[in-house]
Amino acid sequence: MSHNTFGHLYRVTTWGESHGPALGATIDGCPPGIAVDADAIQAWLDRRRPGRTRNTTTRNEPDTVEILSGTYEGRTTGTPVQMMIRNTDQRSKDYGDIAQTFRPGHADITYHQKYGLRDPRGGGRSSARETAARVAAGGLARAVLADLLPDLTITGYMVQMGDKRIDRARFDRAEIARNDYWCPDAVAAAEWDDYLTWLRKDDHNSVGAVVEVTARGVPPGLGAPVYAKLDTDLAAAMMSINAVKGVEIGDGMAVAALTGRDNADEIAMGPDGPEFSSNHAGGILGGISTGQDVVLRFAVKPTSSILSPRASIRIDGTATEVVTKGRHDPCVGIRAVPVGEAMMACVILDHLLLDRGQTGGVRGTIGEGRSLRRG
Amino acid sequence: MSHNTFGHLYRVTTWGESHGPALGATIDGCPPGIAVDADAIQAWLDRRRPGRTRNTTTRNEPDTVEILSGTYEGRTTGTPVQMMIRNTDQRSKDYGDIAQTFRPGHADITYHQKYGLRDPRGGGRSSARETAARVAAGGLARAVLADLLPDLTITGYMVQMGDKRIDRARFDRAEIARNDYWCPDAVAAAEWDDYLTWLRKDDHNSVGAVVEVTARGVPPGLGAPVYAKLDTDLAAAMMSINAVKGVEIGDGMAVAALTGRDNADEIAMGPDGPEFSSNHAGGILGGISTGQDVVLRFAVKPTSSILSPRASIRIDGTATEVVTKGRHDPCVGIRAVPVGEAMMACVILDHLLLDRGQTGGVRGTIGEGRSLRRG
Amino acid sequence: MSHNTFGHLYRVTTWGESHGPALGATIDGCPPGIAVDADAIQAWLDRRRPGRTRNTTTRNEPDTVEILSGTYEGRTTGTPVQMMIRNTDQRSKDYGDIAQTFRPGHADITYHQKYGLRDPRGGGRSSARETAARVAAGGLARAVLADLLPDLTITGYMVQMGDKRIDRARFDRAEIARNDYWCPDAVAAAEWDDYLTWLRKDDHNSVGAVVEVTARGVPPGLGAPVYAKLDTDLAAAMMSINAVKGVEIGDGMAVAALTGRDNADEIAMGPDGPEFSSNHAGGILGGISTGQDVVLRFAVKPTSSILSPRASIRIDGTATEVVTKGRHDPCVGIRAVPVGEAMMACVILDHLLLDRGQTGGVRGTIGEGRSLRRG
Amino acid sequence: MSHNTFGHLYRVTTWGESHGPALGATIDGCPPGIAVDADAIQAWLDRRRPGRTRNTTTRNEPDTVEILSGTYEGRTTGTPVQMMIRNTDQRSKDYGDIAQTFRPGHADITYHQKYGLRDPRGGGRSSARETAARVAAGGLARAVLADLLPDLTITGYMVQMGDKRIDRARFDRAEIARNDYWCPDAVAAAEWDDYLTWLRKDDHNSVGAVVEVTARGVPPGLGAPVYAKLDTDLAAAMMSINAVKGVEIGDGMAVAALTGRDNADEIAMGPDGPEFSSNHAGGILGGISTGQDVVLRFAVKPTSSILSPRASIRIDGTATEVVTKGRHDPCVGIRAVPVGEAMMACVILDHLLLDRGQTGGVRGTIGEGRSLRRG
Repeated sequence: MSHNTFGHLYRVTTWGESHGPALGATIDGCPPGIAVDADAIQAWLDRRRPGRTRNTTTRNEPDTVEILSGTYEGRTTGTPVQMMIRNTDQRSKDYGDIAQTFRPGHADITYHQKYGLRDPRGGGRSSARETAARVAAGGLARAVLADLLPDLTITGYMVQMGDKRIDRARFDRAEIARNDYWCPDAVAAAEWDDYLTWLRKDDHNSVGAVVEVTARGVPPGLGAPVYAKLDTDLAAAMMSINAVKGVEIGDGMAVAALTGRDNADEIAMGPDGPEFSSNHAGGILGGISTGQDVVLRFAVKPTSSILSPRASIRIDGTATEVVTKGRHDPCVGIRAVPVGEAMMACVILDHLLLDRGQTGGVRGTIGEGRSLRRG
Repeated sequence: MSHNTFGHLYRVTTWGESHGPALGATIDGCPPGIAVDADAIQAWLDRRRPGRTRNTTTRNEPDTVEILSGTYEGRTTGTPVQMMIRNTDQRSKDYGDIAQTFRPGHADITYHQKYGLRDPRGGGRSSARETAARVAAGGLARAVLADLLPDLTITGYMVQMGDKRIDRARFDRAEIARNDYWCPDAVAAAEWDDYLTWLRKDDHNSVGAVVEVTARGVPPGLGAPVYAKLDTDLAAAMMSINAVKGVEIGDGMAVAALTGRDNADEIAMGPDGPEFSSNHAGGILGGISTGQDVVLRFAVKPTSSILSPRASIRIDGTATEVVTKGRHDPCVGIRAVPVGEAMMACVILDHLLLDRGQTGGVRGTIGEGRSLRRG
Repeated sequence: MSHNTFGHLYRVTTWGESHGPALGATIDGCPPGIAVDADAIQAWLDRRRPGRTRNTTTRNEPDTVEILSGTYEGRTTGTPVQMMIRNTDQRSKDYGDIAQTFRPGHADITYHQKYGLRDPRGGGRSSARETAARVAAGGLARAVLADLLPDLTITGYMVQMGDKRIDRARFDRAEIARNDYWCPDAVAAAEWDDYLTWLRKDDHNSVGAVVEVTARGVPPGLGAPVYAKLDTDLAAAMMSINAVKGVEIGDGMAVAALTGRDNADEIAMGPDGPEFSSNHAGGILGGISTGQDVVLRFAVKPTSSILSPRASIRIDGTATEVVTKGRHDPCVGIRAVPVGEAMMACVILDHLLLDRGQTGGVRGTIGEGRSLRRG
Repeated sequence: MSHNTFGHLYRVTTWGESHGPALGATIDGCPPGIAVDADAIQAWLDRRRPGRTRNTTTRNEPDTVEILSGTYEGRTTGTPVQMMIRNTDQRSKDYGDIAQTFRPGHADITYHQKYGLRDPRGGGRSSARETAARVAAGGLARAVLADLLPDLTITGYMVQMGDKRIDRARFDRAEIARNDYWCPDAVAAAEWDDYLTWLRKDDHNSVGAVVEVTARGVPPGLGAPVYAKLDTDLAAAMMSINAVKGVEIGDGMAVAALTGRDNADEIAMGPDGPEFSSNHAGGILGGISTGQDVVLRFAVKPTSSILSPRASIRIDGTATEVVTKGRHDPCVGIRAVPVGEAMMACVILDHLLLDRGQTGGVRGTIGEGRSLRRG
């Protein structure tokens, strides 16, 4: 990771500001021969798009992706893939009044302090709009993964909004796509809907959320000691998403309260290899995947752009109160779901390529199992 | 981060196995002219050393560091600094019986699956012993930081053992060094001592912990969008420590339950620059430091090496029960405190160098403040 | 350097194929606050543009650059700068017949062997058209260098075409821009013009060249042992340009015939610091700049796309003869001059940022000199 | 490449000074399961060792390598391999008088200017002694290559000493190991011997050389556009060796004098795949290997440490004359031969791993050939 680049072999560099002419992702290291076109990427972008529900920003952009390089006759060539999204709905006037003011809880002040200037239009580079480029990069990663790991599925969903958590007993994977909140619990989804409507309309406020992302079908052996662990790179990937303040793998922060006896995921031999009695580890031991589901969660803070006044200062040091009008999500966690999935896809692909680079993808056998190739 | 290397400009590569001849850290990119010698590094290592209390492993090694390169007449020369620690207490026989067995919750199985072989002596590369090299690297980073940021202080401490948390009302920084648990709450420390003694002697068990690390005196402007954010790199640094399963910045996972109004750290102009009414953000906005305390926490799982039997399998696929004798910490979180501090030091130094590389360290002014150099 | 990325802190990723929709450069790590706009970049691109002389390809494209991100109100913001050039003159039919054939001396065959497919239109990614993106990146680097090192000048010129070398006694810097060949020797320029016209029209052939690039005003202290030496990175930068087969620093290959007595650049103290009696070293000792002119040369092979038939094979293994029609430069060395300058600019800027990152840019004094800051 | 690290996936970081306690190589990313021990590495080091002939430095060190990590029971484990060489013959007094003086043509002055201090003992980090660590790293790379590419052979030899070149008509591969100069031409070897003896004893001088390194058995498809080309990385690898001032691939600088017709390596279909009528390209087209021999040359300047007086200055700016006593090679090109081979081995292995990471090592077929796996 180097400033705006992410990944070791599947390297994603995103670029662009919220209200500049365009934004996009430059992807270097994509395997060749993969069938992909703009429509395939567009499908993932459409999932993330704001304007999807009444409780997300009303900014309405088609977010149409163009593939400018790296494919020929519908297949990747192994050269850099440039995916560009034009910004078409740039109502700059909405943001004009904040150019001299720092919104509390926002990157306005730190960009100014670091760079001595900032693009104030829509948050510039610090806008959540940057995550559209991540979703495009994740879409390409999924096309590659469909070829290399056809059994892999990556699923993101919200498990908490404000202090309202889902009931795991009601967890229904099919429900996730049915409501506006990527919520696997229909009862919670309804409750969240009421809460968020009140929060936005009456309370002029916003709220945080917890997103969970799972990957099923990850082969054992991905990851590497000790600073390119699979969980190290997943933690970095998720923490780099706007507004994320915490990341958990498996049981996460709750492992602190466990004893060693409880935390041990016991192992038995099954017909297809080792099987585990539980998954406290979230599918990762010693930084390397076990073959179980990889499970992580991240917490998204409430957006700082709210209609309620907050005390702040201007660049000239004078005091002011900030009230952010314009189009802002009351719960940015909702849009973070496809972003978390995209980052999961990029990390898994990157580690798949790293693994076959170093080891050739040959797996140590257990029992009478054959030595299998990964990827 | 690339396998066993950490950092962008202050690049740390650790090497070595628990029971090999030696382990160490190769550090590239250290600024020149910094006064440092082996004694200065040794002081940090002594803080981490096992055998410190009755409730840490009884493995008793002096952990003596040798500086093999990169200094001349007591100052760094700007060339790679090699710091080596010989392994002197290698009772390999303690571990011989586990060479064919996978401990539940341990990296045994994933190393085998990835590499097809592993060094079973004391956990090999996956042993917490690797963290001694991190502490050495952090010691060198602190020597540089003492020169570049003399007001910086980095403090780690435990805030939770099992389900027993400190009482923040009793928080006393001076208490941290007085007890065996880096605990800032004397009452909690006593409680933990009783609990851990019982856990080890009577329950043959282990337990998790939460460590908090704060850095005071971090200048504003460190960090960079969007994949080398200060919090991205801190999350990666902490998640790469053995047994860590969760990382939080500022309010961490709890931000999910906050509203935007509550979460906004309001800003006022103070005599020396902006001041914040609160620090939900943990000193980082948009991935860039604000000048407030940088605050993070990470959760350490209970060690998987316990005297209680757990079901598992052997390499040949047959079932077995694992009981790990030998010398193991009942709460590895204790030893993780100096390690977390060391990683914080490395990340802050790395970002200080990155910042002055890109920006020259000149800070955007607020109010009538002068433009100041960082680092 | 990682596939399509170049540089450590000033990181340039180029993307795009010769006949795709567009190509460009994604630049990460650019210092903030630098005055630059599309016109400033365009000026450098216009110098490189084919169609400039009767002896370069007649492909006629405006090569208009758009800056899509990373600037605000005419200054860089410190975030990624995306510079895109649309391909407007894509006569794909010129190249259609070579999709199944490998041109001798061309990357056709190796791209096929590596990736299993290739974009045959105009050479795809292996086309010299990629160098337009380098010139854009170099233009931005020059804008930064104008701010940080105002006395720096970078000058490229051709010193040999075929077996015809310039006469160093006639070297005239002012002459370089006056002829079509970036030739500092007016007599040689006239001779080259006749030769190249004959070669193209009558001989249906092409020819190689040697380009020299010098940088005056490079401060001492840039570069680093032992794998990021200034000359290591310059050699990589130049060798990465299409068709380059050799790189020399200072006296280059000729140092083999020198004795130690002859090769020693003797040192004396001048009014502004050390002065050297000669510059066999090309301004670099131990990988670090001395403050003298940095001098390098690189050899460009003749283009493989010629009207004379050459024996080859098709993808199906059958024999064929290749005659390349279409628009091709008889001496690609000419267009390599601005490219070599651009790479020099990128490398020097990158090392300037690296140096101030690690050392703060403070220079060791000699004599009574003050300790000076670099950059 | 980042300061003292070299390579993308097979990453070599060398450390250590000429007269410090030790030097070595930290290697990250080595494939697991490779049979290797200290003796195998030692064999390569013994080839490079000074004191080998009467015309190399009389410094006499055993250069005994210790493997401190990354192997278990004689096989690599996939974790970092630390190889250390103790410095045992550190006659520091030989160098004491040069601590205040800058040798012309040496890195003394640039290290001082960059870092503000330097280790003057034996050249410190800038000593050719660093190359011992490269040879160790290359030895490990060869062990891996013996497993992955059993038909690969890498051969280095000197083709020029001073202005005396070998006669290619007398080229005899078997002769290389028979003389003290890695010379494939027995007549030239005898001539060089006389010349060098005179140069050392009577002329108190030194001389440059050209080294050629070839790799036979490199599969097609290694390398990547456009900044991690195989020739880009080879050029960087060779230019990073002490005293190297020029690097050539294939015909190198001589391509400038060739026409396109002459330079085209014509292709025909052979029984095992494409065959080429010539190898002007040195086995690399578009930065990717063709399957032909990879051929490169590099020029080594004469050592600057000679017994003849040269004018210089001291740190305090006063004038002086430098005469370097002590043990120095009159032609460092001799010892550069095993170093060039080692760097070739490291680059080829690195690109083999990169290639199978990105492409899985599957090669595009030509004719009826099967799609073959590389590595």
